[in-house]
Formats: sequence, C-alpha cells, structure tokens
Amino acid sequence: MSSSLARLIQQLSAGFSNQAQAFDNPPLYAHILVKFRPLPQLAPGSLLLEQSYAITPGTPYRIRVLRAEQRDGALIIHNQALRDEQRFWGAIEDDERRQSIGAADLLPLEGCTYLVREMGEGFSGEVEPGCRCLVERKGSLAYLVSSFEIDPRGMRTIDRGHDPATHEQLWGSLAGPFEFERTHDYNGDIPPSWLEN
Amino acid sequence: MSSSLARLIQQLSAGFSNQAQAFDNPPLYAHILVKFRPLPQLAPGSLLLEQSYAITPGTPYRIRVLRAEQRDGALIIHNQALRDEQRFWGAIEDDERRQSIGAADLLPLEGCTYLVREMGEGFSGEVEPGCRCLVERKGSLAYLVSSFEIDPRGMRTIDRGHDPATHEQLWGSLAGPFEFERTHDYNGDIPPSWLEN
Repeated sequence: MSSSLARLIQQLSAGFSNQAQAFDNPPLYAHILVKFRPLPQLAPGSLLLEQSYAITPGTPYRIRVLRAEQRDGALIIHNQALRDEQRFWGAIEDDERRQSIGAADLLPLEGCTYLVREMGEGFSGEVEPGCRCLVERKGSLAYLVSSFEIDPRGMRTIDRGHDPATHEQLWGSLAGPFEFERTHDYNGDIPPSWLEN
Repeated sequence: MSSSLARLIQQLSAGFSNQAQAFDNPPLYAHILVKFRPLPQLAPGSLLLEQSYAITPGTPYRIRVLRAEQRDGALIIHNQALRDEQRFWGAIEDDERRQSIGAADLLPLEGCTYLVREMGEGFSGEVEPGCRCLVERKGSLAYLVSSFEIDPRGMRTIDRGHDPATHEQLWGSLAGPFEFERTHDYNGDIPPSWLEN
C-alpha cells in the first residue's frame, strides 16, 4: 500500500467525541461518538464505523463498514451497510462479534463512495458527485452531501440532505460542522500487511 | 388572575423531553430536558426554568426565572437571570435550594420578554420585537429570535441568533424546532392564589 493510504488508515483507526463542542454550544450540537476500527478478516483497509449519541452508546444510529483504498492513484473510501445490522450493534468494543463480520454481511452503498485528498498533515473527503447517495428520513428521500476533514488532532464532519428534485437543503445544520477530538486509538488493530508499500 | 393566565401557568409547570425527536433524527437533534417549576415564594407566575443536555442533567446550560403575567390585557413572560447561577444548578429537583431563591437573586433580562397569545388549546410566544435580547456565544454577540408553542400535549421551541448589524442568521438549526413531550407535572406546586380570577 502507498504511504498515503497507510496514513489515512492510521488516522481513521480511532475513536472520536465532540463533547467539547456540544458543551460549548448548548443546545445546538448533540454530543456524539464516532469510532472506526480495523476489521483484519476483511479486505485490506476495511474499518467498522459506529456512530451513536453519547447518551446511548449501545444503540448506534449508524453502523457501516468502510474500505479505504488507492485506485488509479486516487484515495477513495467505499461505503457499505451491514445486513441485519442490529446483530452488530456494539461490536466496535466486542472483539468476538467484530471478528464475526464476514464479506457476506456487507451491502455496498452505490453512489456513497468518498473521494479523498491529502490536505496538510491530514485528509479531506466528500461523497462522490452525482447526487446518488440516497437516504431516507421520516419517509422522505434525500441525497446526502457529506464531507469530512481528519488530521492528527481530530476530525470535522458535515452531513446535509438535499431534495433530489429541487436540490433544496432539507436537513442539516447551519451551525457548522461537528468537531471531534480523539478519544481512542485503534492503530494496534491494523494488520502490518495493510501498511506495507 | 384571568383564566388565560392561569392556564398558561398550568401548561408551563411541567417537565419536557425531546427524546423521541432526537432518536428519530440522529444526529441532528441534541436530546435535551426542559423543566419549569413554580416558585411560590416569589411574585405570582414565577417559574424556575432549567434546560440541560439529557446526558448531564446536573449541569444545566440555561437557568432562568420566568414570570408570567397579564398586562393591559396581554399575556407576557418576563425573563430573568440568576446571580451566581451555579448556586442553583439542580434546584429544579431540590426543594430546599429552590425555596431559597429570593427576589434579590434575580437579574431582569431587558428586551427578552416573551409576548404570548392563545392559540387553540395552548399558547404561542416569541421574544418582543426590537432585536435587544443579546446573547454571547464564543465571544460574538447576537440577538436572540426565540419562539415557542405549548399545549396540553407538548411544546415546540426554536432559538436562533442573528448578527445585530447585518441581521444575518449566525446560529440555529435549519432542521426545525425542538419538539418536546411532557415527562413531569409540577401543577401541584402552584399556589392556589395564583390561579384565582
């Protein structure tokens, strides 16, 4: 693997919290936890993602398997859902259940791949163009406009939903991105083979 | 007191939570708790207000003493801060500390009075016009545009900060109002004299 890809995987393999932001800006930001943890049994670059409200860490509102890779010289992150995802709630901190995730459990999310570029000491990424990453919220369909920045200090994310017909913003915050600090380091879970050139 | 004012005080004297909204719309809404509880030792219509993140109920991010009254036929709610407010954190559930709040602890918030009108079975209110209800967030001054609706089922609130010079919205959600369900009833704390015509 290239050193850029290795560095991206290393920076992602961590736990994050926006506690400081939430407490500095009540009540505008929910306090949320985001964790990315390597899945060595799957293709290189595969990371389990769990996002939850801090108040209910055992019932994540989003669980995915991401896969970072370099293709034609560019960094991308594939986005995959999990079949019957409730089976894997909490797997981020449960070695046995995390190791039980197999390739057959993954459902590729078309149109939801992140395009990533290096930026300073870190990376920035956004969902590929095309308005094809559709998400449903309360029965209404929106396409996701999502971006992130990550570096050795932390991570910033912003998610917005737009109307597929009018492109009007349907949901998401005007208050700006979620701002996360690092709380956990999962670099010890990365198989050495993933980091070789 | 008029029956409208009595009804407003009765509908306000309660605890509220937006748990359902937060869990239905992750991660857009912080899960917050709002409680209004009568302060019989103060002027009629005085209610202690505490707002907190559900995850940290003991350290409210906002504590106020409101006072509902009828003036010239109109319903209004005065808005008052508390001197050294940390003394009263948690007083909403602590009878002794709640009863220790005296008139000398109150600081009127000029320009932040709510104008209230009856609406169906409930009431709606908004901060008086004039752009004078100034709040500071991270060193920047904004004027508050705040409104609420309350009825026997629940409460909806929306707060936004605007630039005093340009009137541009500085913070607040595009996602819409906080939507609260009732969790506590503090009508038993209302002195009967407050409800007489």
